[in-house]
Amino acid sequence: MAWDFQTEPEYQAKLDWARDFVREEIWPLETVFSELSQDQLDRVYAPLQERVKEQGLWAAHLDPELGGQGYGQVKLGLLHEILGTSPFAPNAFGCQAPDSGNSEILAMAGTPEQKERWLEPLLAGDIKSAFSMTEPNAGADPTLLTTSAVRDGEDWVINGHKWFSSNASIADVLIVMAVTDPDARPHQRASMFIVPADTPGVNILRDVATMEHPQEEFGKLGGHAEILYEDVRVPADALLGAEGAGFLIAQHRLGPGRIHHCMRWLGVSSRAFDMLCERATYRYAFGSVLAEKQTVQNWIADSAAQMQAARLMTLHAAWRMDTEGAAAARTDISMIKFFGAQVLHDVIDRAVQLHGSLGYSTDLPLEAMYRFARAARIYDGPDEVHRQSVARQVLRGYAPPADEVPTEHVPTRRAAAREKFAEILETVTAND
Amino acid sequence: MAWDFQTEPEYQAKLDWARDFVREEIWPLETVFSELSQDQLDRVYAPLQERVKEQGLWAAHLDPELGGQGYGQVKLGLLHEILGTSPFAPNAFGCQAPDSGNSEILAMAGTPEQKERWLEPLLAGDIKSAFSMTEPNAGADPTLLTTSAVRDGEDWVINGHKWFSSNASIADVLIVMAVTDPDARPHQRASMFIVPADTPGVNILRDVATMEHPQEEFGKLGGHAEILYEDVRVPADALLGAEGAGFLIAQHRLGPGRIHHCMRWLGVSSRAFDMLCERATYRYAFGSVLAEKQTVQNWIADSAAQMQAARLMTLHAAWRMDTEGAAAARTDISMIKFFGAQVLHDVIDRAVQLHGSLGYSTDLPLEAMYRFARAARIYDGPDEVHRQSVARQVLRGYAPPADEVPTEHVPTRRAAAREKFAEILETVTAND
Amino acid sequence: MAWDFQTEPEYQAKLDWARDFVREEIWPLETVFSELSQDQLDRVYAPLQERVKEQGLWAAHLDPELGGQGYGQVKLGLLHEILGTSPFAPNAFGCQAPDSGNSEILAMAGTPEQKERWLEPLLAGDIKSAFSMTEPNAGADPTLLTTSAVRDGEDWVINGHKWFSSNASIADVLIVMAVTDPDARPHQRASMFIVPADTPGVNILRDVATMEHPQEEFGKLGGHAEILYEDVRVPADALLGAEGAGFLIAQHRLGPGRIHHCMRWLGVSSRAFDMLCERATYRYAFGSVLAEKQTVQNWIADSAAQMQAARLMTLHAAWRMDTEGAAAARTDISMIKFFGAQVLHDVIDRAVQLHGSLGYSTDLPLEAMYRFARAARIYDGPDEVHRQSVARQVLRGYAPPADEVPTEHVPTRRAAAREKFAEILETVTAND
Amino acid sequence: MAWDFQTEPEYQAKLDWARDFVREEIWPLETVFSELSQDQLDRVYAPLQERVKEQGLWAAHLDPELGGQGYGQVKLGLLHEILGTSPFAPNAFGCQAPDSGNSEILAMAGTPEQKERWLEPLLAGDIKSAFSMTEPNAGADPTLLTTSAVRDGEDWVINGHKWFSSNASIADVLIVMAVTDPDARPHQRASMFIVPADTPGVNILRDVATMEHPQEEFGKLGGHAEILYEDVRVPADALLGAEGAGFLIAQHRLGPGRIHHCMRWLGVSSRAFDMLCERATYRYAFGSVLAEKQTVQNWIADSAAQMQAARLMTLHAAWRMDTEGAAAARTDISMIKFFGAQVLHDVIDRAVQLHGSLGYSTDLPLEAMYRFARAARIYDGPDEVHRQSVARQVLRGYAPPADEVPTEHVPTRRAAAREKFAEILETVTAND
Repeated sequence: MAWDFQTEPEYQAKLDWARDFVREEIWPLETVFSELSQDQLDRVYAPLQERVKEQGLWAAHLDPELGGQGYGQVKLGLLHEILGTSPFAPNAFGCQAPDSGNSEILAMAGTPEQKERWLEPLLAGDIKSAFSMTEPNAGADPTLLTTSAVRDGEDWVINGHKWFSSNASIADVLIVMAVTDPDARPHQRASMFIVPADTPGVNILRDVATMEHPQEEFGKLGGHAEILYEDVRVPADALLGAEGAGFLIAQHRLGPGRIHHCMRWLGVSSRAFDMLCERATYRYAFGSVLAEKQTVQNWIADSAAQMQAARLMTLHAAWRMDTEGAAAARTDISMIKFFGAQVLHDVIDRAVQLHGSLGYSTDLPLEAMYRFARAARIYDGPDEVHRQSVARQVLRGYAPPADEVPTEHVPTRRAAAREKFAEILETVTAND
Repeated sequence: MAWDFQTEPEYQAKLDWARDFVREEIWPLETVFSELSQDQLDRVYAPLQERVKEQGLWAAHLDPELGGQGYGQVKLGLLHEILGTSPFAPNAFGCQAPDSGNSEILAMAGTPEQKERWLEPLLAGDIKSAFSMTEPNAGADPTLLTTSAVRDGEDWVINGHKWFSSNASIADVLIVMAVTDPDARPHQRASMFIVPADTPGVNILRDVATMEHPQEEFGKLGGHAEILYEDVRVPADALLGAEGAGFLIAQHRLGPGRIHHCMRWLGVSSRAFDMLCERATYRYAFGSVLAEKQTVQNWIADSAAQMQAARLMTLHAAWRMDTEGAAAARTDISMIKFFGAQVLHDVIDRAVQLHGSLGYSTDLPLEAMYRFARAARIYDGPDEVHRQSVARQVLRGYAPPADEVPTEHVPTRRAAAREKFAEILETVTAND
Repeated sequence: MAWDFQTEPEYQAKLDWARDFVREEIWPLETVFSELSQDQLDRVYAPLQERVKEQGLWAAHLDPELGGQGYGQVKLGLLHEILGTSPFAPNAFGCQAPDSGNSEILAMAGTPEQKERWLEPLLAGDIKSAFSMTEPNAGADPTLLTTSAVRDGEDWVINGHKWFSSNASIADVLIVMAVTDPDARPHQRASMFIVPADTPGVNILRDVATMEHPQEEFGKLGGHAEILYEDVRVPADALLGAEGAGFLIAQHRLGPGRIHHCMRWLGVSSRAFDMLCERATYRYAFGSVLAEKQTVQNWIADSAAQMQAARLMTLHAAWRMDTEGAAAARTDISMIKFFGAQVLHDVIDRAVQLHGSLGYSTDLPLEAMYRFARAARIYDGPDEVHRQSVARQVLRGYAPPADEVPTEHVPTRRAAAREKFAEILETVTAND
Repeated sequence: MAWDFQTEPEYQAKLDWARDFVREEIWPLETVFSELSQDQLDRVYAPLQERVKEQGLWAAHLDPELGGQGYGQVKLGLLHEILGTSPFAPNAFGCQAPDSGNSEILAMAGTPEQKERWLEPLLAGDIKSAFSMTEPNAGADPTLLTTSAVRDGEDWVINGHKWFSSNASIADVLIVMAVTDPDARPHQRASMFIVPADTPGVNILRDVATMEHPQEEFGKLGGHAEILYEDVRVPADALLGAEGAGFLIAQHRLGPGRIHHCMRWLGVSSRAFDMLCERATYRYAFGSVLAEKQTVQNWIADSAAQMQAARLMTLHAAWRMDTEGAAAARTDISMIKFFGAQVLHDVIDRAVQLHGSLGYSTDLPLEAMYRFARAARIYDGPDEVHRQSVARQVLRGYAPPADEVPTEHVPTRRAAAREKFAEILETVTAND
């Protein structure tokens, strides 16, 4: 049936299970997360991960031959919407960034040997990985990368300065983007390398503290490492994919990742929205519960509309990726990136406001959501870059009118329309 | 297939035909519309209407037994998106408001005799109708209606003051909402009456000039009549539907109508958007074409995203109406009403701005679109009422937490979550 | 006294008189304006203009030797705020655009002969003038002007295509901007010429109808003429100011003009705001008067704040122009241009919405205000150009940090701050 | 001179000194603040406070007889704008909240004995104080307070639950708001009490961690304590001001406090704005420095305009308070509260965005500003309450039109205007 907005019943049942599981088993984890060491966390997660595997929802983004389910992006999106309700859910479902993206890269571009050595333990959850691309002077514009990999005999020697390499401080292996041909065309300058974290010269300086984790402990899930690569020597088979294919692979990784981001953002939003609505039903001030204040009603209505908009747009982008491929979905994905990030902020912002000082306190998860949401407009390409990208792609479908010459202006075209109509006009008037 | 975002190929072919037809035959009509009398217009439209009937797209909103196609709301929506590109298109397709809505009312609530006398000629395009509900002191809140219909023997006698009765000054028949039981519950006070336009006492004072038609000629398609009903006497069989069922019938009429509105707004928006993009490709100022200005790129990207959002939301509401019925779609329809009206404004506003003084002039249709768009936030219920309605319906799904007592606050619930987790914590820590 | 926000009592008395006069004598004029010919209007205005002259408020923008008052921009601004409440007020006060600006240009750049011939009758209200600069392909960016004036013996011969030459269709004389040296630097290419309207070759094609005047009658106050200059021959003394000084003079004219615009916009806004507030006190819907709806309260509060903001900013810009000169006020003036235009729109938009269908109708002046307001973001430089201008001027005050080198980033500077503090830290810690 | 926008030269010199002092001595303190104990901080501040006293800028908000300067609000505002550039500046200037407000309360309402015992050491900086009003279920609406003070012989016995009592965990004395007459009119139910922090029954549970201080250390400047008052017994002379005067005193305290808040917010904004502009001059991406991107230019222009608006509005409110008194300035103060909080957010938000991941990191103060800014829309009355307050006060100036009757609508009033004009019209037409 055309224009159908629902999923198969058997998959819906899986989603229902996941929703309950996340709410009952993962949400409580939030209250103790900061008190546990990474090692303790690993032990806490183990039984949860088992239950997910039993349900056949483990690493669902991967193809069946890799232990995944081969779901398309629409189904994955619906799952990520649920996982988004807690920052601690993806790790229980084998789709924690950056491991999930890294496993996709390895599956796509890795040699059989690379897959055996790195992908298999990664999928099993035995090792952790990081993706090391962003540099202090190369954020949104990756053509400004300066980290280099130079051939020296059979080896590559990597030098450079990276930061915001997520999870690098707990990773066993890093996927590093480095310039291998400075003179090549912008998107063919860089290549990817698989670098074991204990390779000499990999100097992890710190986990950069951020608005999300203002007092980040070093070496814990979610850290954003600053790394100096100083004469890091790796063998020839450390090269991942073809030489010069770094951006191509990265791009391939980002598309689905952005869909999952957007769906997770909706999960965050929906949780904040529930808190907004629930609180409105009982919090009393100035003569009524907040649900009866028109300002609050406006917040609820606008939030509901924005979330519905972002949700449908994201699932549409996923559907296009499933049916027409990643390239066709590129504009859609850029649109949901900046549109979705705004929705995420707006809904949380209203929930914080309705909760007043309580919402501003850490007693509720809202303030952490607010800080988390601010990053969404920056990472994976800032909004400004995605807007520009959408405009450029849209504008390819337009051209100056053939009848447009510099010394005339558009009314001439309406004159032409009018002329076309003259005959009918004559007939009509003649009848009078 | 689940989550499908396309229509059947054979219907898509009809849509493609309609798109070309409207662009080639209707758009030029805009340039001469204001110079033609209503009578001349009728003659201009006749052959166009014939061609639409040949394509099987005439009065597509009606059930097959009434000469329509029985399309659901999704398909109708897709058609209205095309018709929206010109204010003069719906009349060619037999779905001109208010005739389209009135025919639905007659089809739903009319007796066989009423249908024969009024519905058939209306469907044939032989007569025109108006819907007379809004009063100077009863706009958004219909419970404030004061026009009354009082039983006098076998007749009803109607007295009252209406305005914004669209097309009444050219109508053959008026459907009039009047209070029949002032003491009934708010939504059971009023009934609908079929009143021939030439009934004594129907005094059409003027067509109210508006932002859209600042110098409205009296008695032309699109006029908004102010009417005094002075002792207008109609027989018992003028009552349409049950006594007291006026609001129920009106509500039934408004749901699909709002979907069609929103889809037509998207048609308007898409035409403005095309002009925005086309102009950007060649208009030169300050060293480059406008397409290279980042502000313009932002406008294009934001417009594209907003239109996509409104489009998917509207089709989703249509799909829900088709699959779950009008009642289930009520919140969705309120959401698209205010969300869509904003999108309509924003896209047109940017197109006007990009065209500068040309966009502000009547040489292009943009300025008329801008004036038209301002009404969208007012008619069929102002945005504020729809926001309130959405909030109320959303809030029905929420209740104060059971464990919430006035003297405590929410952290207790997180304490409970933490408690639930104590066992695992113990296990984990014990292993250290 | 420093930071004073009031004017002298004697001038305040004049303002009070003007406020009453405009409200009692000019506002009623609005209801009949469209029915009167320009000639009839002239006769209606004559006695009103006399009364203004008696009060010493005639042509207040001019220096005393020209019959004006020599008020600075702050005082003029306060007057224009009052005149802005009706589009028909400035004409009664001898400061109708474009006559007011043109008289300033003539006073500044004219020779004694030019002043005698054109300025004196203009000030006396005996003739009308137009300013002819905008071209179809040269709007915001005047360096794209193509209208040329070529020396031919003692004469200049002007050829070109202009539009939006306000009031040209009723003007006795036109001030025309034309390129006299195409190869000069961008802002020295053009000169100004005084061209009597009856000069052969001055072909006034039409008054361009606009959103503000959708069915403009040709030849009436407020029209925006499209003009073809075809071999228009004027003598050498038609040159106004130095050759190549066209932009310099135009710029000089625009600064104070923008302040007056912004203050008049505040007048419009304040009238819409009064209607918004008044209506809120009695219009009843959904169980209360509108004044008790929180959405309406938000509109009132936001409007009041925005108007206060725009008012203070504009008077600050005027104060800077009075005390430091036009050049120093340039950024301030660009800021009020785009900020003020937004306030104008927002306040009117809310007033329209609160009035519902009545606000959308021409029964009230709100819908005309709404159409008028849309132009404010376009004329005298579109918002986008003024934003760019503000940014450029602001950025002149900033430079890259001296200690910034490409391979490092800003934390180094905080390290320096920390270092500076080391000594105190040592002392403090030593005491522990 | 009227409409003067500058301060006296001698005071300007003091401001210039303060600006340099804060930049050179306080800003570096930010980099080490979190590493110092409160005791160490006290020692670091001591010499800085001495220098401020030497300049005659210590506790400038107080009257001269209390060691202050007797500056009015305008001058204080200009000083607070400078102090706002660092959260650590006010403490060096003897105007750290809540001590500053508390000293004002004591100065205003305290008996000579109370002043001697509490005000003098507070002014000398020898003790610290807290203000304990907010309760978990009484935030914006103080009439919901439940903490009670009951007379028992000569004593008062206080019981209740407070939170967000800023600095209570380091305070020597608390000013506590408690209900003394539950049956009195809403604003006469509560009284203020001076409660030494070591009084038995004052149980400080914790410092509530917030978005601003997510991992608050207990007992440090800036903490927001949660306190249980359990049978806290204080003598009769602990009552501050008259019984039932609690709200009156609190209100008196909040007015100037809000002005200082708004000016400090401008200090924060200006610092973020400087970083925004500076970074734009050198950060390179996608082919140019960011200063050349139009989006960035828009951010700079909008920020500059908004800051100018908020600054002038705040100084205008201060001027009104100085010249007409606190009551007259009430609407102005509510306006700057919500308007200023939005400006604060917007400017910082843009600065964060321009800095990308660096702006999101704690390497720069921007992310802390962003978190700080979120509170501004909540404390001292949430925006929603201030908007409502402005609307109510504005609406007092309006009434339904005398000629308005339910069955007519406003066009009648325009008819009256038209009628008034009939005579002139006749004259004019007669002349044709």
